[in-house]
Amino acid sequence: MKALNVTQKLINDHLIEGKLQPGEEIGLKIDQALLQDATGTLVQLELEAMNLDQAKTEVAVQYVDHNLLQTDFKNADDHAFLHSAAQKFGLWFSRPGNGVSHPVHMERFGKPGKTLVGSDSHSCAAGSLGMLAIGTGGLDVAAAIAGQPYFVKMPQVMGVKLTGKLPDWVSAKDVILEMLRRHDVKGGVGKIIEYYGEGLQELSAMDRHVIANMGAELGATTTVFPSDQETKRFLKSQGREEDWTELLADDSCEYDLHEHIELDKLVPLIALPTSPGNVVPVSEVAGKPISQVVIGSSANPGLRDFWIAGAIVKGKSVNPDVSFDINPTSRQIIQNMIDTKAFANLITAGARFHQSGCMGCIGMGQAPASGTISLRTMPRNFPDRSGTKDDQVHLCSPETAAASALIGKITDPRDIASLYAMEYPQFEDPELHIINEDMLVAPAEDGSKVELKKGPNIKSLPEIEALKSDYEVPVLLKMQDNISTDEILKAGAEVLPFRSNLPEISKYSYTVIDETFYDRAMETKEKTGGHIVVAGDNYAQGSSREHAALAPKYLGQVAVIAKSYARIAWQNLVNFGILPLEFENPDDLEKIEQGDTVEFKNLRQLVENRATIEVLIKKETGEVSIPTKHSLSDRQIRVLLKGGIINDFKEKLSA
Amino acid sequence: MKALNVTQKLINDHLIEGKLQPGEEIGLKIDQALLQDATGTLVQLELEAMNLDQAKTEVAVQYVDHNLLQTDFKNADDHAFLHSAAQKFGLWFSRPGNGVSHPVHMERFGKPGKTLVGSDSHSCAAGSLGMLAIGTGGLDVAAAIAGQPYFVKMPQVMGVKLTGKLPDWVSAKDVILEMLRRHDVKGGVGKIIEYYGEGLQELSAMDRHVIANMGAELGATTTVFPSDQETKRFLKSQGREEDWTELLADDSCEYDLHEHIELDKLVPLIALPTSPGNVVPVSEVAGKPISQVVIGSSANPGLRDFWIAGAIVKGKSVNPDVSFDINPTSRQIIQNMIDTKAFANLITAGARFHQSGCMGCIGMGQAPASGTISLRTMPRNFPDRSGTKDDQVHLCSPETAAASALIGKITDPRDIASLYAMEYPQFEDPELHIINEDMLVAPAEDGSKVELKKGPNIKSLPEIEALKSDYEVPVLLKMQDNISTDEILKAGAEVLPFRSNLPEISKYSYTVIDETFYDRAMETKEKTGGHIVVAGDNYAQGSSREHAALAPKYLGQVAVIAKSYARIAWQNLVNFGILPLEFENPDDLEKIEQGDTVEFKNLRQLVENRATIEVLIKKETGEVSIPTKHSLSDRQIRVLLKGGIINDFKEKLSA
Repeated sequence: MKALNVTQKLINDHLIEGKLQPGEEIGLKIDQALLQDATGTLVQLELEAMNLDQAKTEVAVQYVDHNLLQTDFKNADDHAFLHSAAQKFGLWFSRPGNGVSHPVHMERFGKPGKTLVGSDSHSCAAGSLGMLAIGTGGLDVAAAIAGQPYFVKMPQVMGVKLTGKLPDWVSAKDVILEMLRRHDVKGGVGKIIEYYGEGLQELSAMDRHVIANMGAELGATTTVFPSDQETKRFLKSQGREEDWTELLADDSCEYDLHEHIELDKLVPLIALPTSPGNVVPVSEVAGKPISQVVIGSSANPGLRDFWIAGAIVKGKSVNPDVSFDINPTSRQIIQNMIDTKAFANLITAGARFHQSGCMGCIGMGQAPASGTISLRTMPRNFPDRSGTKDDQVHLCSPETAAASALIGKITDPRDIASLYAMEYPQFEDPELHIINEDMLVAPAEDGSKVELKKGPNIKSLPEIEALKSDYEVPVLLKMQDNISTDEILKAGAEVLPFRSNLPEISKYSYTVIDETFYDRAMETKEKTGGHIVVAGDNYAQGSSREHAALAPKYLGQVAVIAKSYARIAWQNLVNFGILPLEFENPDDLEKIEQGDTVEFKNLRQLVENRATIEVLIKKETGEVSIPTKHSLSDRQIRVLLKGGIINDFKEKLSA
Repeated sequence: MKALNVTQKLINDHLIEGKLQPGEEIGLKIDQALLQDATGTLVQLELEAMNLDQAKTEVAVQYVDHNLLQTDFKNADDHAFLHSAAQKFGLWFSRPGNGVSHPVHMERFGKPGKTLVGSDSHSCAAGSLGMLAIGTGGLDVAAAIAGQPYFVKMPQVMGVKLTGKLPDWVSAKDVILEMLRRHDVKGGVGKIIEYYGEGLQELSAMDRHVIANMGAELGATTTVFPSDQETKRFLKSQGREEDWTELLADDSCEYDLHEHIELDKLVPLIALPTSPGNVVPVSEVAGKPISQVVIGSSANPGLRDFWIAGAIVKGKSVNPDVSFDINPTSRQIIQNMIDTKAFANLITAGARFHQSGCMGCIGMGQAPASGTISLRTMPRNFPDRSGTKDDQVHLCSPETAAASALIGKITDPRDIASLYAMEYPQFEDPELHIINEDMLVAPAEDGSKVELKKGPNIKSLPEIEALKSDYEVPVLLKMQDNISTDEILKAGAEVLPFRSNLPEISKYSYTVIDETFYDRAMETKEKTGGHIVVAGDNYAQGSSREHAALAPKYLGQVAVIAKSYARIAWQNLVNFGILPLEFENPDDLEKIEQGDTVEFKNLRQLVENRATIEVLIKKETGEVSIPTKHSLSDRQIRVLLKGGIINDFKEKLSA
């Protein structure tokens, strides 16, 4: 038998369709599902629309960690809705404030050898335990919860060999920052990153979480670690030794791509604004004044990360101009921080403790002051993500963050060793951590009688209409190249609270491009049964948000005709039943004007037969016919003709 | 010599002007000043406008506890500004997240026998230590910091005799709820409430804080307690025994009004929505389902309050439908909660811990879900104050709150004693608390070189123009009776972030009544040099916000002519240099229309001479003269003619 790496073993064990050939679509059996609240309300509404009786995955967990700032009824209502939906559909419910999904999942639910999909891009963090864990769109997670396979193009596997041992004052964050320094934010696209080698022995499971989590910033499909003695030690410390199984790469296994990091040569690194790939040694930017330090988040979630910061600031006070914010990742970790004196060390030195959750990592609190530098152990520093326009967020290790908090300037942590005559503190991980499960609500034994709790801002998904054969509808919008999902449906504090209210959020469709769109769409939906839009290259690039397809569908969007599509958005259009057509002759875009009427005849059959679809354009001045095509797979054709995945699943259920 | 009560002794010791005759204006020397951030930015801008060199009070402290939710740059910028201003003007600075002003002030700065003014209505809490502490408008606090006396009408003193001892499961909160049950929210207006009697022996200084703090809800000018052995024990536990002095009422002293509470007859009480005066026994409403419990705030800030809640929930889990929010009042108290196991007991039972600050008490987070009951130990439950429209906030003791969190329904805490076979937990206050002062920044030795840090949203106050003698300006708005400050300048999440930006917040002037006001005012200010408005009875009732005078002044408001004024607003108009005129014949309001022009001649002299001021109204149809008057004191006339208190103070400085 062929020698396999860990990734290949995980995929082999879960393969339902396809082959382990990079680029080929594979279908995987999914064992675990992870939802957070910002994307989860829509997933739960999708499960409702699918009439799901009970989650089919081994474990599915609804976390609440993003929207914890309750300034009006909406977030608290969403929490109550998610709680009731978890009960109804057979999911665990991690109550608001219990903690950030990724570390809590790793501590309480993660299992070596299992697959996981999560409606959060950092779901790949579970790769730290020897899992194949992929962040994806909510509807894909809903389908997995409903027992469907997860489809993905088989990535290449990049083997990263780790040798040596990290020097003092250098930690796991510097390993992933080194990967980002070498490969930047697109270097992992279409790849799974698998770590191996003797250097792994020195990295605890939580250290590996740091590396796997922020692997998302490489653009990687996911990151995979083996399950070894360190994994066993971790699960034992969580009281779950019985969940451990060994999962190692075969000795002579192969990788598609190769990388090598000599741990002993690493230095403290830092990502400058405004990209996680913008990495330089800390020493290059040392001395710049800072106004804020934030320690925590899913990218440095472990007890060690807080403990080391506490040990560094112990007996000292942070600089008076620095807001020293601690973002504890879970209530369980807070208890362990108290137990190991990390909490007392931090708070005595001037820390502000916040409730467990994602906080400033997704711009929900602790936005820094104007024109000042914020140092964070978080995974991302995209522009304005902190909530402050033109922010200057830098990403670094807890060691660099704590040292800088003391000095009030960006500081290489090795420099405080001499300044304070301090040895590098040695963390001793407790053999058994304090376990806290009291805010994890188990699934109901029988969810059928559970009523969904819907506040006034939570609306069920409407029925989604299947594609018809004949349409005569207007071209409601003509766009050019590189339209982003932010232009199709913007994010931000004004819009996000309506994520569980499709009729309301639809009012923001395309407002960035044309404020009259919603009114015109509602009018034409009534009059003609729908509309289309046309665009240039790379339509709907950017964020993976599903609302950028779902909201236009709600407004009657039948099809998009574009020169080309961004990958995830193209899939989302199909998932929600909008036909993504491509021009056979890209220049034909110029022949269509906003306000023209398009006629489709016999559309369903043409789609099914992969025939050229001739679109008749009716203008005031006459008519012109334009040839278009689609590039859907058989599965996608089936889904599209039914009006999307939700309808597809409903049909399977009733069969 | 006449026997005196504690209130009389405090006033006697600080009297600069006037006599201890109820109703007569008295001027008091102020020893301490307290600022919070929501009102403090304006106070600091006022100090800047006054060119203050150095605070003249013994102690002045700028706290940051209200606006801790940083969702964009504005709050963090305000914090940096307040820090720099505290350094410049010689104030202590309590850094964001250090804690709620009132308990922190009591623990670290309060001193028996001293006077205090604070720009927060709950500043009266310091009365718990034998201080005379009054909440008031920001400009009054600015004036006190600048060394000016504080002027107030001498209130009546109500002596409340306490006898007996509180039963098990009944605590200090029930004492003040009993006062509110008897006297409702206006029962304390024009009064100082002074507690005395043997029952005091059983009430710790922090228990007294609970009672003094929420005395604000009675409408009382303030609440006063003696400084006795309990006060001494408290200060000793804070490492400040040397700050204690005895201050007791003389044996045969007298009170203007009398009340008597037999502590042993009290039962657990609860204030129903939507008034703190809407008090009934908990047993009357027991059994109603709840969605949230919040423990903490300045109304139950002490270690005991958290400890007792922790002792009640110890070893149990709160009901899964209840969000159990802990609002620790200070970082020092968090450390003591950890030390006494209160923290662990609460968090193990399911608590969400938040950073120290005012939080949901002023609608800054933890808004409850729609249509659900929230039980809070906070002081106020006015409609929508929580952030959730039509909220159902109930106010109660920590005992009632913790018991209800366990059951998931409103619960009389005496009932869980039998349910869980639980004795009433006995709190033992540590002889010496853990002290945490590392987030208190001492005043700079020389503030003259400190630069104020002003983010883009922080604007210095403009020069305020003195009253002229001759005007010909339009009547820009005609209003009827009972116009509130909410209509003159609304509050809320949209407007509050502009509290340090007068030009910006002025755009909201009178928008509730007339959205065109700002544009019209700016135009007439340019053309004619100003405007007046006219109104009916009780002009500018409601909140004491100063912006309701300052913003119209900025827009050129010369005078208001009204039938009558609300007390605080009338004083604010004078403080900011707007002339508050009254109709000699109230019916004359009908003779003035919006759009008329008014002419004043020789105005300064007429104001000074207390002469009738004939206002010439020029209409399209002709002219009419209307007699008006003012009722300002000599001091107020002087202030007004100079353009307000800031100009008055500047002149004194340069003299």
